[in-house]
Amino acid sequence: MKLFDAGWAPSPRRVRIYLAEKGISVETEVVDLRGGAHYQPPYCDLNPRRQLPSLLLDDGTLIDDSVAICRYFEALHPDPPLFGHDAREIGLVEAWIRRIESDCYAAIVYAFRNRSPAFVDQGVPGFPGTPQIAELIDRGNRMWPVFVDALDVHLAANAWLAGEHFSFADIAAMVAIDFAVATRMPTPLDRPSISRWHEAAAARPSARA
Amino acid sequence: MKLFDAGWAPSPRRVRIYLAEKGISVETEVVDLRGGAHYQPPYCDLNPRRQLPSLLLDDGTLIDDSVAICRYFEALHPDPPLFGHDAREIGLVEAWIRRIESDCYAAIVYAFRNRSPAFVDQGVPGFPGTPQIAELIDRGNRMWPVFVDALDVHLAANAWLAGEHFSFADIAAMVAIDFAVATRMPTPLDRPSISRWHEAAAARPSARA
Repeated sequence: MKLFDAGWAPSPRRVRIYLAEKGISVETEVVDLRGGAHYQPPYCDLNPRRQLPSLLLDDGTLIDDSVAICRYFEALHPDPPLFGHDAREIGLVEAWIRRIESDCYAAIVYAFRNRSPAFVDQGVPGFPGTPQIAELIDRGNRMWPVFVDALDVHLAANAWLAGEHFSFADIAAMVAIDFAVATRMPTPLDRPSISRWHEAAAARPSARA
Repeated sequence: MKLFDAGWAPSPRRVRIYLAEKGISVETEVVDLRGGAHYQPPYCDLNPRRQLPSLLLDDGTLIDDSVAICRYFEALHPDPPLFGHDAREIGLVEAWIRRIESDCYAAIVYAFRNRSPAFVDQGVPGFPGTPQIAELIDRGNRMWPVFVDALDVHLAANAWLAGEHFSFADIAAMVAIDFAVATRMPTPLDRPSISRWHEAAAARPSARA
C-alpha cells in the first residue's frame, strides 16, 4: 500500500491529519504539486484525474479521493470513531462534511482558483483546459460570509461540528479555513465561536501533520 | 421521525430509492418545491438552508443532506450494505459518490441552474440572491462529455460503479444521469457500457421510488 501525498494542498492535509489522529503509518510518496509532477508520468498514468492524494492498494486498486481514503482506513481501524459514534452522529458528520464541501470549500476554491495565475485554464481540478471565470470570484466572496455566519452560530451551541465528539468534519473544516486564510479570504478567526473551536482543533498534535 | 421529501428534484429521489432498496418505511411529508413552500414557514424555520430532503429525528435533530440521511439509516440497517461490503469497497463507494458530485452532478447543475429562468438569483442552493453566471453553462457543457467518456470506460470493466455490488454510488449516478436527460444535457445513454449499467439499475423496483 502506498499513499501519494502533496505538501501544501488542502485535500492531502485532511488525510495526514486523519492518519495522525488514528496513529496509522503508511508508506508515502510525495508528488511535487508545484512542479506539476501530477501532470506527468508516472503519476498521471496511475491517476488520470491527476489529483492528490490517492491511495494505491496492494491489489492495484486506486482510491483517488481524500475522504474515501479516510473511510477506507476507518473500516480497518474503527476506534476511536472519526465518522460518528452512533447513527445520529454518523448522519451529522456526513452532513457537515458535505456542507463544508458545498458551502465553504467551494466558496474558497471559486474565489482562489478563478483568479490565481497558477490556475489559468485549470478552472476545475481534473478537467484540464477549463477556463477561469472571473464572476466566480464574486460568487465565492458572496458565499463566504454567509457560511461563516452560519458556522459561528452553530459552534456557539456545539463543541465540535457534529456535537460532542471531534470528527472528520472538524478536520475538513479546519483544513478549509486554514486554506481560506492562506488564500486571503477574510479571516473567520475573529468570530468568537469559530475562534474557540479552531483553537481547540489546531491545538491537537494531529493539526501539525 | 419525519422525512421531508419533494417530488421531482434529484436529491430527494436518492433517498427514496435508497429506502426502497432497504425496505424501510418512514413517515413522509412532501414539500411543494415548485410552489416555493421550502422558502416559506414552517419549512424554512425548520431548515434555514431551505433545501430538501431533510430528516427530523424524534429528539429534534435535523439531518439536512440526502447522503447523510442514507448513512443514518445505513447505521441502523446495515444489511444489505449499500455503502460497501469491506474496506476497499467502502473506499470505492465513497470515491464514486464524491466524483458523481464534483464531476457529474456539478456539470449538470452548472449548465441547468445558470440558464433556467426558475433559478434567477438562485445560482447556488442555500445562498439566496446569488446571480446566475452564463459562463458556467459552458463550463458544465465542457465537463459533461469528459465525465461521460470516463464513466463509460469504467463501466466497460465493472458491473457497478464500485465493482461487483450495487451501491449508493449507483443510486447517485442513476439519479444524476436521469436529471441530466431531463434537463437536456446530451444523453449518455447511447454509450454502450453506460447504457447496459443504466438499464440494470433502472430495472430494479427501487428506481420507481
